[in-house]
Amino acid sequence: MTTREVLREAKAATGALALLGSEEKNRALLAMAEALTGEQEAILQANREDLAQAEANGMPGVMLDRLRLTEARIAGMAQGIREVAALPDPVGAVISRVERPNGLVIEKVRAPMGVVAMIYESRPNVTSDAAALALKSGNVCVLRGGKEAFGSSSAIVRALRAGLRREGFPETFVNMVLDTSRAGATELMTAVGLVDLLIPRGGAGLIRACVEQAKVPCIQTGTGICHIYVDAAADPRMALDIVDNAKTSRPSVCNAAEVCLVSREIAPVFLPMLAERLTSARAAAGKPPVELRLDREAAAIIPGVPAGEADFDTEFLNYILAVRVVADVQEAIAHIAAHSTHHSEAIVTGDAHAAELFTAAVDSAAVYVNASTRFTDGGEFGLGCEIGISTQKLHARGPMGLEELTTYKYVIHGSGQIR
Amino acid sequence: MTTREVLREAKAATGALALLGSEEKNRALLAMAEALTGEQEAILQANREDLAQAEANGMPGVMLDRLRLTEARIAGMAQGIREVAALPDPVGAVISRVERPNGLVIEKVRAPMGVVAMIYESRPNVTSDAAALALKSGNVCVLRGGKEAFGSSSAIVRALRAGLRREGFPETFVNMVLDTSRAGATELMTAVGLVDLLIPRGGAGLIRACVEQAKVPCIQTGTGICHIYVDAAADPRMALDIVDNAKTSRPSVCNAAEVCLVSREIAPVFLPMLAERLTSARAAAGKPPVELRLDREAAAIIPGVPAGEADFDTEFLNYILAVRVVADVQEAIAHIAAHSTHHSEAIVTGDAHAAELFTAAVDSAAVYVNASTRFTDGGEFGLGCEIGISTQKLHARGPMGLEELTTYKYVIHGSGQIR
Repeated sequence: MTTREVLREAKAATGALALLGSEEKNRALLAMAEALTGEQEAILQANREDLAQAEANGMPGVMLDRLRLTEARIAGMAQGIREVAALPDPVGAVISRVERPNGLVIEKVRAPMGVVAMIYESRPNVTSDAAALALKSGNVCVLRGGKEAFGSSSAIVRALRAGLRREGFPETFVNMVLDTSRAGATELMTAVGLVDLLIPRGGAGLIRACVEQAKVPCIQTGTGICHIYVDAAADPRMALDIVDNAKTSRPSVCNAAEVCLVSREIAPVFLPMLAERLTSARAAAGKPPVELRLDREAAAIIPGVPAGEADFDTEFLNYILAVRVVADVQEAIAHIAAHSTHHSEAIVTGDAHAAELFTAAVDSAAVYVNASTRFTDGGEFGLGCEIGISTQKLHARGPMGLEELTTYKYVIHGSGQIR
Repeated sequence: MTTREVLREAKAATGALALLGSEEKNRALLAMAEALTGEQEAILQANREDLAQAEANGMPGVMLDRLRLTEARIAGMAQGIREVAALPDPVGAVISRVERPNGLVIEKVRAPMGVVAMIYESRPNVTSDAAALALKSGNVCVLRGGKEAFGSSSAIVRALRAGLRREGFPETFVNMVLDTSRAGATELMTAVGLVDLLIPRGGAGLIRACVEQAKVPCIQTGTGICHIYVDAAADPRMALDIVDNAKTSRPSVCNAAEVCLVSREIAPVFLPMLAERLTSARAAAGKPPVELRLDREAAAIIPGVPAGEADFDTEFLNYILAVRVVADVQEAIAHIAAHSTHHSEAIVTGDAHAAELFTAAVDSAAVYVNASTRFTDGGEFGLGCEIGISTQKLHARGPMGLEELTTYKYVIHGSGQIR
């Protein structure tokens, strides 16, 4: 089937899915979860073939691990679907209601988008997560996973569709694109009228391609050059814990910190503590030390690598931290405005005025006072789930849960009103 | 100044505008209103030159009237700005607040977009409306009006900026693009990182160009092929009033009806009433009669022009109505799904079940039961103002007021939390 045909089938299924009530959608989800474990042998077999192929192609170990499925991982995916079933249904919720002087009752009601397309990379579990979140929010999904995981994703989609069929639902509620070429991705990005929302999840290259080429509504996700500003009025121990956590707890994720800005006033006290904690203490504990890339002023206080220009514009996703000394919160705000990807930034300070200025002026999806940037996450924000983290301002910003997969419409009841 | 330079100045002004409180913004707005009337001679002079040029170029009378400014119209524009000042400020409103078990307090706070660019056509009053709505919502605007109104718009922007300066605000809160060529519009559409939101207001050609070319976040506005379905259970008199109003009260606007679908059961009663009201009664009253373009089944009941295929996919914006007989509400829903531009649709019925099915299944910005589609309007919806009507599903749908010109950010307060 061509991508166009898949999209047409998906579009045709939107009407039926939009009309399903919460109980029916949950019944579909539970059937999908059951089918996933029921068909786990076929899924594991397809995954073994993907792995063998990837290994033969020289895929690095970290990536192989992302691609690998096990009984436990499949059970986790099924459990994930059941958890989505347990979440509240966003569709049909009345966001606001107004009765006008002319008697018209105007309700703003949450509604599905229609067809949600998702382009993602190697982790096959995204396939079942995305299918479940789309279905719960009343959307038909069109999935396009990574080429390396094609066999695994296909087997997962076959299982999910078998579950839907068994309960009498159209299998076209969940769809997968068979063309994993770059042209296939472009086709999704330009399918005006057939794709109501496109969510790319992946590296900077994929996101850039979407911004450049998409003609359908699209959400930018993920890239995070996150900053932590340690203010003159910071508790240095708290600042140390926050920078350490934001940098080292999971450096490969988008909410990890990449840049630490330090107030000139506190730098002589704080920077030596930072260097000790991130380099020598970690080395002594057998952990990978953090490479500090220092501006000239920081380099005069602690040892490290001199920072190049690019170091303040790079998402390292690794044990590297760029460090710059700034005059004050104003200069920190200006630096962030010039270099941030508008994901997550934090200030550590005991000064309420500095905190207020920082949260008002920093134009990012999540702005923290005295906490780690690592909390930018659907689960941590209490959304119950997450389809991605938007770094754009249109529609959704920050962690996207079920509500962010919906739109709204106005439903107006009258008794013959004319204008 | 090049468009790029205008955009850079605009971007540089966003920080200062985002930090202004409601009182300061209102002070700026009132100064803008005052300057508009203060400089009305210069504005009227520029407008006379635009009009002379347009007339020499053979612009039709209706368009000349749109372009024409008078003392009264300028007073109306100034009054419009004062009304925007009186509206509640959307910025800073806390949309939701949650305290997490770990003590983090997460607030979702309404924030400005940054730079809002607007491309519009000949009416010069849009210039002051758009500037006022953008400023009130904390956004720096970049305006690009029609070539024919260039002198008028320039004079208006000069006045607005003079008002800003007089009160000590940067004049770069309101900006205008000097390049009115097509390439200039494309430059706005592709200024990634400099335009946070683009709103095209104009004909189908402009909207299509934006969908095709825009790489910045963009809202589609305006095109409306609006349907009214007269159900078997409709009160025929109510249906008649609604169709008449939706078609003839102002046929040139996007919320006017273009298509009437009639249930087969009621067609023999309703269609003759419709033909009488829209054609002979109007002619007798000296009003332009409505041309009825009829499908075969309707043509067997009343006189009219046989409908061609295109008639059910055309925004006539004129005294023309396409009429089709359908079996029932299901067939009406299917017709609308195939032909609508997702703006506004109405059902006229006394059957609650049919109404419920219609409102649930029709995928449009505004879905009416027993009321005219003409109510799709910011003022009629109680938003107090309107920057346009979105026919897309991402971000904003239907009439866009001040809130729809904003985004949100998460502001998180902690006491040293790490993950």
